[in-house]
Amino acid sequence: MADLSSLTALSGASLWINNLVDGTSGMAVKAKHSIFSGSSHFQKIEVFDTYAYGRILMLAGTLMFTERDEFIYHEMMSHPALSRHPNPKSVCIIGGGDGGVLREVLKHPTIEKVVVVDIDDMVKQTIETYFHHLATGFSDKRAEVVIKDGVDFFLACKDTFDIIIVDSYDPGGPVQSLETEDFFSQVASHVAPEGCAVFQSDSPILRPGFVRSIHGLVKPHFAAMAPYICSIPSFPAGTCSFILAAHSNDFFSACNSKATTTIAPLCKYYTEAIHTAAFVLPRYLQQIYPV
Amino acid sequence: MADLSSLTALSGASLWINNLVDGTSGMAVKAKHSIFSGSSHFQKIEVFDTYAYGRILMLAGTLMFTERDEFIYHEMMSHPALSRHPNPKSVCIIGGGDGGVLREVLKHPTIEKVVVVDIDDMVKQTIETYFHHLATGFSDKRAEVVIKDGVDFFLACKDTFDIIIVDSYDPGGPVQSLETEDFFSQVASHVAPEGCAVFQSDSPILRPGFVRSIHGLVKPHFAAMAPYICSIPSFPAGTCSFILAAHSNDFFSACNSKATTTIAPLCKYYTEAIHTAAFVLPRYLQQIYPV
Repeated sequence: MADLSSLTALSGASLWINNLVDGTSGMAVKAKHSIFSGSSHFQKIEVFDTYAYGRILMLAGTLMFTERDEFIYHEMMSHPALSRHPNPKSVCIIGGGDGGVLREVLKHPTIEKVVVVDIDDMVKQTIETYFHHLATGFSDKRAEVVIKDGVDFFLACKDTFDIIIVDSYDPGGPVQSLETEDFFSQVASHVAPEGCAVFQSDSPILRPGFVRSIHGLVKPHFAAMAPYICSIPSFPAGTCSFILAAHSNDFFSACNSKATTTIAPLCKYYTEAIHTAAFVLPRYLQQIYPV
Repeated sequence: MADLSSLTALSGASLWINNLVDGTSGMAVKAKHSIFSGSSHFQKIEVFDTYAYGRILMLAGTLMFTERDEFIYHEMMSHPALSRHPNPKSVCIIGGGDGGVLREVLKHPTIEKVVVVDIDDMVKQTIETYFHHLATGFSDKRAEVVIKDGVDFFLACKDTFDIIIVDSYDPGGPVQSLETEDFFSQVASHVAPEGCAVFQSDSPILRPGFVRSIHGLVKPHFAAMAPYICSIPSFPAGTCSFILAAHSNDFFSACNSKATTTIAPLCKYYTEAIHTAAFVLPRYLQQIYPV
């Protein structure tokens, strides 16, 4: 790979990626050079090498993750659910074509089957080519990848899963069907009675209305639910929110301490204490969730 | 005040503030216009109005705080210490010329005296003119402002304080004397036997070396200490770290629950649960602190 950074420097230009929200604020990252640029049927896909965050993936012009801090998002999307479930064997990941959640889920020794559903095959191909540390799970015997729209997948699927993880892209992203009432109903009906689902619900600071709408879409279908958060440097405004939802009222009082003890040493963000702390929201973020 | 934003729009230019770390990443904020620009004996002082974060204060070209999220920093700099102390009456704030910590400290009904020490009188003047909600404490009868270097202040000071809060600006900022061994020794000797001190220690993600050096400067002078963190959207990489240190080993096992119950309802970030959660660090941040 040619090192274009020195050429850029010679020419006097510099390459900046501004990942903005509403056009008025966001993160600025200086790139060394572009590594890949392509277009799938659904979206523009770009990979850049940056000084501060290593390689980054952009979909439809929006920063998806960075090499430096992706572990935070992927650990926190996976382990809170997997460490509460008493014996998770089957997991379905919707929109997990980047492999990050798959990699984390496969750390749990009880797992027998993980189905990754993503509408865009080219995301997976890009990961396999440019982000090897994210692609490790794809070759695992327990993993199956289905290239399909999430709603279509569930309509044709007769199995239930112990855990469903909805790793959706972003509000207004390419898979609009994942923001409908129908989709949330489908997720709930494919979660086993003892199981749970996790939904990423974006920045509670910048998009409280979106968080509330996801909360409202989840609520009718589950007996118990709780929001939690984590801090990701490259995420808009630095805080990402999730919703964990279960069919059983007892789900949240359980704790599979064996899973936590096994998994925490394999993580860089998640620990047993972080699990509890993640469900503690600052007052101004508590207030965006309906009582 | 003239609305320059429309003029800027007409001319086709736009005003962006890029608050960078090491020149390779940081926050980008679009400004409506400049409100104030001046130079004190120590530093350039600027106030801008921005779309996403309201008014912001910049010192020496670095973003200090924004109107929208300053409450997080100022609450978390103050209440963890004040809520642990059994009966805090006297507080000294070093570098508190922006009034934010003073405002929070004065919420505690036990407080009888707060001494704010800042080297730069023009910071206080700028706050009084452009940030009224931060300046409220300056007219309180319990508050006293001393315009002086922190080390010089302690050399001449014979009192001790129940709590000393070191609200230093930033590494490499205008008050280099606050990063010396001598200063930390002075702080410790001015904290009463039952008391504590709080030190802001910057971004643990971007400046782990600086965090370690502050930790190393605090440690020899106190019997017990613990780092804690909070999430601030406009802070570099989104996470700010602090060190709470006490002369008594028992300090951290105490909890003044009356103070927490009184103060939490007056806060937007701080709650009793947040107090505990703030001391829980993700594994990758735990690892930067010496064992």
